[in-house]
Amino acid sequence: MDLAITNVLALTMRDDRLDILEDATIGIDGGRLAYVGSSDAFDGQPERTIDGDGLVATPGLVNVHAHTDLTLLRGAAQDVPEIEWMNRALGPLSAAMEPEDRTAGARLGVLEALHSGVTTVGEYARDVDDLVEDVYGPMGVRAVATETINAVDGPTDDLGPDEPYPLSEEQGWAALERNEALFDACTDRDRVSALYGPQALDMVPRGLLEEIRERAERHDRGIHMHVAQGEREQRQIEARYGTDKTTVSLLEELGLVSDRLLAAHLHGATVEERARLADSGVRMAANPSSIAAIDGITPPIVEYRNSGGVAGIGTDQAPGPGGHDFLRELRTTALLAKTKRTDPTAFPAWEALRVGTIEGARALGIDEQVGSLEEGKRADIVLYDLEHPSTAPTVTEPLHTAIPNLVYGANGGVVDTVLIEGDVVLEDGELRTADEGAILEDAGERAADVFDRTGDEWRKADSELVEAVEDGWL
Amino acid sequence: MDLAITNVLALTMRDDRLDILEDATIGIDGGRLAYVGSSDAFDGQPERTIDGDGLVATPGLVNVHAHTDLTLLRGAAQDVPEIEWMNRALGPLSAAMEPEDRTAGARLGVLEALHSGVTTVGEYARDVDDLVEDVYGPMGVRAVATETINAVDGPTDDLGPDEPYPLSEEQGWAALERNEALFDACTDRDRVSALYGPQALDMVPRGLLEEIRERAERHDRGIHMHVAQGEREQRQIEARYGTDKTTVSLLEELGLVSDRLLAAHLHGATVEERARLADSGVRMAANPSSIAAIDGITPPIVEYRNSGGVAGIGTDQAPGPGGHDFLRELRTTALLAKTKRTDPTAFPAWEALRVGTIEGARALGIDEQVGSLEEGKRADIVLYDLEHPSTAPTVTEPLHTAIPNLVYGANGGVVDTVLIEGDVVLEDGELRTADEGAILEDAGERAADVFDRTGDEWRKADSELVEAVEDGWL
Repeated sequence: MDLAITNVLALTMRDDRLDILEDATIGIDGGRLAYVGSSDAFDGQPERTIDGDGLVATPGLVNVHAHTDLTLLRGAAQDVPEIEWMNRALGPLSAAMEPEDRTAGARLGVLEALHSGVTTVGEYARDVDDLVEDVYGPMGVRAVATETINAVDGPTDDLGPDEPYPLSEEQGWAALERNEALFDACTDRDRVSALYGPQALDMVPRGLLEEIRERAERHDRGIHMHVAQGEREQRQIEARYGTDKTTVSLLEELGLVSDRLLAAHLHGATVEERARLADSGVRMAANPSSIAAIDGITPPIVEYRNSGGVAGIGTDQAPGPGGHDFLRELRTTALLAKTKRTDPTAFPAWEALRVGTIEGARALGIDEQVGSLEEGKRADIVLYDLEHPSTAPTVTEPLHTAIPNLVYGANGGVVDTVLIEGDVVLEDGELRTADEGAILEDAGERAADVFDRTGDEWRKADSELVEAVEDGWL
Repeated sequence: MDLAITNVLALTMRDDRLDILEDATIGIDGGRLAYVGSSDAFDGQPERTIDGDGLVATPGLVNVHAHTDLTLLRGAAQDVPEIEWMNRALGPLSAAMEPEDRTAGARLGVLEALHSGVTTVGEYARDVDDLVEDVYGPMGVRAVATETINAVDGPTDDLGPDEPYPLSEEQGWAALERNEALFDACTDRDRVSALYGPQALDMVPRGLLEEIRERAERHDRGIHMHVAQGEREQRQIEARYGTDKTTVSLLEELGLVSDRLLAAHLHGATVEERARLADSGVRMAANPSSIAAIDGITPPIVEYRNSGGVAGIGTDQAPGPGGHDFLRELRTTALLAKTKRTDPTAFPAWEALRVGTIEGARALGIDEQVGSLEEGKRADIVLYDLEHPSTAPTVTEPLHTAIPNLVYGANGGVVDTVLIEGDVVLEDGELRTADEGAILEDAGERAADVFDRTGDEWRKADSELVEAVEDGWL
């Protein structure tokens, strides 16, 4: 046995509860969990031991939906009307990012995610395999990679909301070929799997959507798509397909509604439509901070789960919600759910921890591999030191305060150690697989350059932030 | 000159904007700000210099409303119906706290607040002067101390919601005498001032409320009170004073509505009542995470400010919202405001920073002393290192990303240095005025003891958490 973590308070997520084990030992061999049980009954001979006394262990956290490359533009777009966010605030900057900028941004975003206990990211990007090769691989982080297939050709900010975006078949099919290459590249990778990534129903031609569905069925693959993102998208759908269509009705017509589909957002769908999706096994990626910050909306994750749907949580992108601290995202999910429903019992701490682990793994379709601490699964484990000003004290009787304190008190600062596939990626709160200072420095330099060379464009796009700068607010 | 912070990016909050100064120097002498301006024009001869290059400076953050002693019970009460929170979840434990437990809890809470940049706490507690002497004084933190005046005598959990709580005149008047002693003790303290603390209209006899109003006017003092906390309180008011009364109408009748009053919460008042309070100069203490967690409600801070009212932000208590990380609270305030109003422009980052500093100081009535970086004011300053995975990168053109990133990205981990009245209280992220490890250890031991000796009571009170424990969730 390679490694054992001893005397830890483990929240294993086995079965359908948290399965709280006090004084547990977790044994790891060949990157897999070889033992999860009481320290007393453990008789393995580990080569290395981590003393887990005073620490809490959970399965690695699963961030189901993120565009980490945009972390380079943290602070560039927030506090603006939804209609401005993409095209007038973020757009001028994101369009100017070079591949190296995207890599630098993704390194920063994955670093932040790791510090908050994330071991798997549902990464969604153009040329995502570059991020896999240059970021996820070297840093040792698990990824479910989605290649963005977006056929929108040319600027859309001059179009009226009811003029359909110009789509390029060629651009769309080229993206699908990149997506196929991604699947090929992932066949022999332990920590990376792939999904098809049609960006959204209004950004991909119908024929291409049908092709993707057909290929997904033929190869038994999943599809990760932004679905029902709100009014802008609905008007595009009506302009392109007719006023009797909605995103969801069209998805149904195209045969895309099935348990192959991971649907991000869903706030633009009706209650009935969401119930139908949940019934059909569509999995939901809820991004509460992002949708709150950008749209002023709380995503319907509680409702979706109450309808029997599978849902995970994502952090989407840094501009707007602020970043990829996943522990903070669990807290935000809970507080937004409570205020949406005027119900302080909504999305309790224990539910947050399950959704952040095993349910997220189900949403990404990798729950056979990760998401719980069970013998045979990959050894993705987080150790938290809750003797921290934001999470102490920890008591175990008459209740385990570690559970609410991880959700409501913690931020990335309490993550002590992260193991992925049995490898120590973070230890004593420090990254072991790359140079954290270099990541921050590189991101800072590249961001300065992107903002510098696109400042005029940004001002010309004239979002409300430009006025805020002139007024001395920003 | 004692100290200068050089080459810092300063957000001074002077006038009615952020007043963003690049390459600023902040000079401190005798605990006061002696220079705030460009580094080029600075010609002071400081005894000590802090190189602020790469750091961001703001005025010390002002947490207007907190019961820090309850930090000892973090994790004890959350995810329960509002009606259970106080009496059935938290009550059995908080009632068993000894004075030393309260001190240990307050040390932990103030430590957490300090780590998040808080320099002033609007502390609200019974025997609050003990906390001032044992916690705030030694740790060097500014306090606006409020002595709880609560005349409720005996248990209330057996009463129907329309049976008025039994009030003890004697208990109430004894508390008022403690409150007077607090004012006396504060006359010669630099960092502590006092307010009257009638807990709430339904918990203090009418005659005593009239006496407090009279004394406040006579001595020109402020009053800090929980106001319009919701249905439970409203039913008590009707039971005691008649069904034609509301908390606010009664406050008006008692002459308590004036700019002397700092009113916590207000979510139970009507829109019209809140507008009248704002018009009359009543200041609001909004506690978004707490009210979201415990009531499932977003406090009306944006509405109150739109009505022209002065408002600050508080963290209330750890059980429920999770703790006293004030940077996190700014983010939560913004995201809850956006979703409440379905408006992503609500409570933008720059407004959050003003409300967290100068507006908070106005709410506590100490804006002549603190809340902005202006020559002559007390030197309460926070330095942030935003070269952190959750807040990088920082650019200054075409906008200052530090402003949104402090609000949406940051948590306590980015606070590098805290000065209060010119003294370095936190440096390189480490507490200088007390032993942080000892605070955590003491809190852990005392919490274990409180939970241990009251476990049976807690189970007997039979909140929904008891069932959650039995079901393997907690």
